[in-house]
Amino acid sequence: MSKMRAILNPACVAVVGASNDPAKLTGRPIAFLQKHGYAGAIYPVNPRYEEIAGLRSYANVADLPEAPDLGLVLVGAHRVVEAVRDLAARGTKAAIVLASGFGEAGADGRERQEQLREAAGGMRILGPNTIGAVNLTEGIPLTASGAMEVEDLPAGKIALLSQSGGILGSLLSRAVARGIGFSKLVATGNEADLEVSDFLEALAEDDETKVVALYLETIRDVRKFRSAATKATAAGKSIVAYKVGRSESGARSAVSHTGALAGADEVYDALFKQLGIIRARTFADLLDIPAALAQGRAMTSNRVAIVTSTGGAATVVADNVGLLGLEVPAPDTETAGKLIELELKEAELDRNPIDVTLAGLRPDLFRAVLRILVESPSYDAIVVVVGSSSIAQPDLVAQPVLETLALTDKPILAYVSPDAPGIIRQLNARGIPAFAAPESCASALHSLAAPRDGRNESASNAKNIDCSDVPAGTLNEADAKKVFARFGISVTREVTAETPDAAAKAAGDFGGRVAIKILSNEILHKSEMGGVVLNVDPADVGRECAAMMARVRAATSAKIDGFLVQEMVTGGVELILGYNRDPQLGAYVLLGAGGVTTELYNDVAIRLLPLDRASARDMIDEIKAGALLRGFRGKPKADIEALIDAMIAFSAMAETLDSRLSEAEINPVFVLPEGQGAWAGDSLIVLD
Amino acid sequence: MSKMRAILNPACVAVVGASNDPAKLTGRPIAFLQKHGYAGAIYPVNPRYEEIAGLRSYANVADLPEAPDLGLVLVGAHRVVEAVRDLAARGTKAAIVLASGFGEAGADGRERQEQLREAAGGMRILGPNTIGAVNLTEGIPLTASGAMEVEDLPAGKIALLSQSGGILGSLLSRAVARGIGFSKLVATGNEADLEVSDFLEALAEDDETKVVALYLETIRDVRKFRSAATKATAAGKSIVAYKVGRSESGARSAVSHTGALAGADEVYDALFKQLGIIRARTFADLLDIPAALAQGRAMTSNRVAIVTSTGGAATVVADNVGLLGLEVPAPDTETAGKLIELELKEAELDRNPIDVTLAGLRPDLFRAVLRILVESPSYDAIVVVVGSSSIAQPDLVAQPVLETLALTDKPILAYVSPDAPGIIRQLNARGIPAFAAPESCASALHSLAAPRDGRNESASNAKNIDCSDVPAGTLNEADAKKVFARFGISVTREVTAETPDAAAKAAGDFGGRVAIKILSNEILHKSEMGGVVLNVDPADVGRECAAMMARVRAATSAKIDGFLVQEMVTGGVELILGYNRDPQLGAYVLLGAGGVTTELYNDVAIRLLPLDRASARDMIDEIKAGALLRGFRGKPKADIEALIDAMIAFSAMAETLDSRLSEAEINPVFVLPEGQGAWAGDSLIVLD
Repeated sequence: MSKMRAILNPACVAVVGASNDPAKLTGRPIAFLQKHGYAGAIYPVNPRYEEIAGLRSYANVADLPEAPDLGLVLVGAHRVVEAVRDLAARGTKAAIVLASGFGEAGADGRERQEQLREAAGGMRILGPNTIGAVNLTEGIPLTASGAMEVEDLPAGKIALLSQSGGILGSLLSRAVARGIGFSKLVATGNEADLEVSDFLEALAEDDETKVVALYLETIRDVRKFRSAATKATAAGKSIVAYKVGRSESGARSAVSHTGALAGADEVYDALFKQLGIIRARTFADLLDIPAALAQGRAMTSNRVAIVTSTGGAATVVADNVGLLGLEVPAPDTETAGKLIELELKEAELDRNPIDVTLAGLRPDLFRAVLRILVESPSYDAIVVVVGSSSIAQPDLVAQPVLETLALTDKPILAYVSPDAPGIIRQLNARGIPAFAAPESCASALHSLAAPRDGRNESASNAKNIDCSDVPAGTLNEADAKKVFARFGISVTREVTAETPDAAAKAAGDFGGRVAIKILSNEILHKSEMGGVVLNVDPADVGRECAAMMARVRAATSAKIDGFLVQEMVTGGVELILGYNRDPQLGAYVLLGAGGVTTELYNDVAIRLLPLDRASARDMIDEIKAGALLRGFRGKPKADIEALIDAMIAFSAMAETLDSRLSEAEINPVFVLPEGQGAWAGDSLIVLD
Repeated sequence: MSKMRAILNPACVAVVGASNDPAKLTGRPIAFLQKHGYAGAIYPVNPRYEEIAGLRSYANVADLPEAPDLGLVLVGAHRVVEAVRDLAARGTKAAIVLASGFGEAGADGRERQEQLREAAGGMRILGPNTIGAVNLTEGIPLTASGAMEVEDLPAGKIALLSQSGGILGSLLSRAVARGIGFSKLVATGNEADLEVSDFLEALAEDDETKVVALYLETIRDVRKFRSAATKATAAGKSIVAYKVGRSESGARSAVSHTGALAGADEVYDALFKQLGIIRARTFADLLDIPAALAQGRAMTSNRVAIVTSTGGAATVVADNVGLLGLEVPAPDTETAGKLIELELKEAELDRNPIDVTLAGLRPDLFRAVLRILVESPSYDAIVVVVGSSSIAQPDLVAQPVLETLALTDKPILAYVSPDAPGIIRQLNARGIPAFAAPESCASALHSLAAPRDGRNESASNAKNIDCSDVPAGTLNEADAKKVFARFGISVTREVTAETPDAAAKAAGDFGGRVAIKILSNEILHKSEMGGVVLNVDPADVGRECAAMMARVRAATSAKIDGFLVQEMVTGGVELILGYNRDPQLGAYVLLGAGGVTTELYNDVAIRLLPLDRASARDMIDEIKAGALLRGFRGKPKADIEALIDAMIAFSAMAETLDSRLSEAEINPVFVLPEGQGAWAGDSLIVLD
């Protein structure tokens, strides 16, 4: 928190451009600060007033009696640069700039944003184009947002960092309605200086924050983001992110909205996975999952008990919970026995959902049911379905749940079937995450069941291997494989031959059928030009090479280096191992199903560099073609450890070549049966 | 409506087991009927009262002055059978039975439900285990549900049929909160007699219903359901269904809840597609999509304009809209020019979302923007994003939208960014579908853009082809193909041979390489036993057959009929064409990607029989492997028409063999380049 203290917990605040009218945007911030009992000094700065809200108003920043921790800049875009320069000159630590009309507003705006940055010098800036920040833990609103006019703004354990002020306002309004409390709220706007990552890093040290919710349109500095997220999760915070730009329309809209350039969505997915960040799939999930995580409990496995007094709603919850891969098992014999001893009339107790139609109206019985379920070894979490009968008397449900909560460390959640915002608010406010959508309830449970180890960033795989001799440009297959081999990747036995005769002679030494390929660093798609023939009898190699040369010559005038004669590898699973670079998020490796499957089914897994063995294994598990490696339909298990070796070696090569590397691909990698290795088939490297 | 008139619009009602206490379940129905001004006669039946709610109470049904149209049965489960028998004896047309404790409650319950059915005789029954029905168009509540106690229950154009009373209550409560009105509400409970299909068929004739929303746990009689849905869509009604049982937990829960046996979810998906039923993916969609459809407008293409005064929320909407495949294109030059003429300050008008920050607070300007957008040839629907600034003055948004709505037949929807249930209620109530979730807004638009032609059920493909000579049991490949050939499916040229020598001789006549397979109706998985060798030189056939016989003999003692020698088909796309029967929903055909792909990626399309050419084409478009047929990566286009011929012929065979057919599969179907046909490769038929 220390770094962002000037913004999240300033000792004194100058409000530049303040006015005396609390109905106006310029009048609100001081009114809010006073209303929430801000203890530090407030210095209004406005030459047109003597006094604002009972405080002396200063004509300019230079006149202030002390250097403020924070300057809250309320003036319009054309006067911002001057105000910021004055604040910086007075020794202010940080400024919040609310005005829009900067990076998001065309070429003029971008120039103005550049001027703003220069004017700030060493002073930190939040904004411009932000609605500011609110420290709810300490009651310090630094915003002009109308959302702060809500009477009852509960503090909680969730920090919200948003790249859109409108979204922050929307989420705050929705959270208040649901009784969900925040610790800190920050809208980062155009991020001319301070980014989401800066606040994320600061929140790693905030004891009042258990969960950080992120609304992201882009990540400007991925290195900073990775470091901040790693610190936050290592400090035990959960991070939940909703990222737009999943569709082209959304990405385009985000660009025009905050001038953000979006990376490819799949690469964001990979980034979030690597950092242990839970991705909110729906907008509601961005509140609902944090609300569940803020209870501070986790499931040890994935088994959910659903207690209900209304069958249909429980069925809907069970269906959605099951769709996310969680279990809704019937009670074990002992648990069922205990439930039956309660003699609940009309209840069916050998099933799950557990229907307690009448017990729901009798707190003592309901409490007994809950106690049996939390003590049961069969369940890792409980969902209580609240039906319409409970609307009139919410305590009939809430009291037993609260009492049970104290007896267990298993999560207890509520799904509210009728429209009952009041009940949802009450339950959330009392520490029982409560949901109106069955899908959100299921997503929340899923996030509680997912293992979230505080991850450390993987160490670099870069090796002290000299590649300065490798020339720039596209390497032919043989040369590319030599580079791969330096890093320890197994390559098929092969020789290059300049003529068909030499190829035939070489093939004779292989002792079996061979593959022959045209050798050229100017031809990227050999097979499309007839430049690949597989499974050739050594006796036919001369004839096949001559025919191949004729075909390729007819198709292209590319420079041809000769032929590559390779041992045939068969019987393995063919995958693709590739390297690419996202303009926003950086270099990544890709593992995919081989052949047309990759394209048709998009069966690929992505991880940003550096890659560790655990992540490599996750990638294999993530692609559906991974099943082929685990012994599919009676086939032998493939050499997964050798594949992981190859993936790590491939990453080591990419990290070692670093910015020189433009493209790299092994397509296919032959993963042979256990103990027989993973072999690079066709290979490509392009160096800058 | 005529058939269900006795339930949805009865001329007079007997309320059996009524009481005088409106706070009690037994007191509610008469109170509700009176409150809503029911014009027909109400006959309380209860020997313990002289008078109930100012009406004469009858000691028993036999005493009633006339045969009631409807009996509303409020007595407990153990007295239901007698009450129903009395009602039937008095000539009552239909009865609603509220009590639970029947089919859903174990063996005793099932027996009681059987007794109930017998007691009813020709009288129709809604229930048991239902909360009843409400005709909101005519103001006739026939229920004891507390949900009817809501003061303001708006009538609308949506009929809701639910197999769960609790869900009906939940949806009613949620709809009231959102200002969404219903025409008819029916909870069908255990469906001992009347099913969802009966009401769906009746609603086809209801002018007051535009959309039917279905909450389904099962479909008991698929034939009735298909017929009813076809009538409803032919009458111009849209149908939206939320079906549980997508996961195992949900399916199990549904079984225990209403004794429903669920079919496989993918087959439900197929059924809904064939009937033009929109499937609600989330529970909220079951209200939100009907609310959008009830506006009675459709998109002619898929282009959406988003008008906003708050950037972040519009980005979220654009992102979700894009995810569902809709377009959010920038304005065309002419439209952009008209917007620019309005001289909206600070607005960016060459983009979409169209940000009208200030115009949102000036109704005249906002109206002008909307008019330009609905008149633009670039857009098929408009979404208005309502920000927090509109909460205080909802009419600033609502009035211009309502006025614009009158000028166009394009749909106009609203997304409400902050928590503002009051605004959502007002907008919906005034005919502007309004959403709190961006995903729901996108789903609703998607449903407006999807073509929904009133479909007719496909005609049967059954042919007058005698198959009585085909024996029961498993046919060998050659015999199976002969059956396929009778229906017009192209089969590869092939001969059967009893010995390796005969096979070699036959192969010599083919004039090219051949495939050889072991011939046996006792071996289902030939290749796993070494019983298939492809691409054999005719000169090698004798030797290969002998080796094959040795391999297969070593593996099995199955009866072997000899060898099948086939011309080799190569160069085509290999797919699977299969037949199966869902215990609930009936016989269907399946088209899938060939090989391991089917299993790994579940790339299959399903349609229930009978199949027509349009549906066959949809199936091809639905599977991702369909791309391989359309000229993938420069490969020639495949003979799609021949594949459709084969699919129709396959369906004709299935319909002709009808219940005799137990299994059928062509795996693979070789789809050759255009003009070269689709050929049955390996084939299987099992007859009962």
